[in-house]
Amino acid sequence: MRKRREIVEQGFRELQGRIIADLEKADGKSRFGTDIWERPGGGGGITRLLTKGNIIEKGGVNFSAVFGATPDAIRNAFQIGAEDFFASGVSIVIHPENPLVPIIHMNVRYFELSDGKAWFGGGIDLTPAYVVHEDGIEFHLALKEVCDQFNPEWYNRYKVNADHYFRIKHRNECRGIGGIFYDRLNASEDKDFEELWNFSLAVGNTFAPIYTRLMKKYGNSPWNEKQKFWQLHRRSRYVEFNLVYDAGTKFGLETNGRTESILMSMPPMACWESNFTPEPGSDEEKSQQYFSNPVEWV
Amino acid sequence: MRKRREIVEQGFRELQGRIIADLEKADGKSRFGTDIWERPGGGGGITRLLTKGNIIEKGGVNFSAVFGATPDAIRNAFQIGAEDFFASGVSIVIHPENPLVPIIHMNVRYFELSDGKAWFGGGIDLTPAYVVHEDGIEFHLALKEVCDQFNPEWYNRYKVNADHYFRIKHRNECRGIGGIFYDRLNASEDKDFEELWNFSLAVGNTFAPIYTRLMKKYGNSPWNEKQKFWQLHRRSRYVEFNLVYDAGTKFGLETNGRTESILMSMPPMACWESNFTPEPGSDEEKSQQYFSNPVEWV
Repeated sequence: MRKRREIVEQGFRELQGRIIADLEKADGKSRFGTDIWERPGGGGGITRLLTKGNIIEKGGVNFSAVFGATPDAIRNAFQIGAEDFFASGVSIVIHPENPLVPIIHMNVRYFELSDGKAWFGGGIDLTPAYVVHEDGIEFHLALKEVCDQFNPEWYNRYKVNADHYFRIKHRNECRGIGGIFYDRLNASEDKDFEELWNFSLAVGNTFAPIYTRLMKKYGNSPWNEKQKFWQLHRRSRYVEFNLVYDAGTKFGLETNGRTESILMSMPPMACWESNFTPEPGSDEEKSQQYFSNPVEWV
Repeated sequence: MRKRREIVEQGFRELQGRIIADLEKADGKSRFGTDIWERPGGGGGITRLLTKGNIIEKGGVNFSAVFGATPDAIRNAFQIGAEDFFASGVSIVIHPENPLVPIIHMNVRYFELSDGKAWFGGGIDLTPAYVVHEDGIEFHLALKEVCDQFNPEWYNRYKVNADHYFRIKHRNECRGIGGIFYDRLNASEDKDFEELWNFSLAVGNTFAPIYTRLMKKYGNSPWNEKQKFWQLHRRSRYVEFNLVYDAGTKFGLETNGRTESILMSMPPMACWESNFTPEPGSDEEKSQQYFSNPVEWV
């Protein structure tokens, strides 16, 4: 049998390629640039960034596979000893230009120690400025369908995880309409590894169909200044979440990670309007309600 | 003798009023709005915000004086027991519209426990998008002059503090050209309290002359799109510093502080351009040099 890390590295690398092909096709204008980097301690990655597309204003689809002596920060986080580590993943954040197209985020990741312990983590979540109820249902149904192929309990469990994880506590709201979020799923046993690897790929493969459908549905819709303002306002909440709470971002910045790759999640532009409250009855206020009170979509 | 906390509360309240009067006069267009709030556990504050002025795009000058049972987060931070607390301060962040006018930040604060222990903290720092060397010297000389009235060692000590404190570690740069930063200066003895209170007021009183001079010098200078972009780019670094590192911001958000008052420090608009590097020899690159390598101004 091939080594797990080879399977994962190649699988994630190919996943990155497939997603990029689908996104470029759906955008129809810009192509992803390629920035190949090496990690001094071992491994490296491919940061791919698209800017100023037809629909995608700024989007990053990053792959990395790194290994070596386990840094102290990871030792502390995982409470482990002197083992070497291997970590690989695909991370995506897409900021569309049109306020009617949601921001989307996906991450699938694998972490392995030289003593054989291994974990998977990841998820997909959607951050529309304007929440369209039927799209929320369709999004969550797609995620439930992926989860249900593996375990009928996973969707509910990981959906609730996401509602908690993507919470902006100081605003008392969620950053979007959630999705699924799972972390540290134990893959030390071969049969768990196989199941969770297939699950990770299934999550990864559901990203492009979900998002390209939204790109097509709203990417060419007309929008106005009021909608643009609301998008820039919601983007400021995205910034706040990522810099204040997001575990991957904080961990990456604290451990001297590759700043430009970590912060590709930042929106191209955002605005902070103090004390802004949407008008009662407006579309903006209706969307705000979704962020304030997580919904049972399915 | 009047109680210390009454002296401090009244003094900071008056300082807020003086600074607002000077800023409104220098701006010449907008006035500061007033938002008076109460803290459920005791005390409250006055948040004053000016937006869309002639020169000030968004500026907050906040006063607060709060007291009561010491929250757990503060107990842990100060490693104290069951004492009650009193805290008061004035906090300012001004974001000008014109990219040639620097962002400025000031904070003066006092913290006292019911057992008589007391501390002062604070500082002023300047964040120009475009660093003008002579302005940097003048700014630091003004701070040195204030410090020298009290202790000839303070300017150097607090200048170095500021260079360390306002460092954006993940960018390997400072957010601006520093200033002075001091924290937990022991004011438990009456003579220390008196000296440090006078020092706090002297720092507070130097804010308006420093900043209104810069408003007058650059507030009406013409600027172009390239300069605006650079300002929005530098503002993104300001956001990153405040959300990732600033102790007051982090502490406020973690302890359920008043989010809109804490985050009045956010710029009205900011942009993140991936992998942006200023052109060699450009004014932007010259300014970047100052952020990358702190200067001995005096």
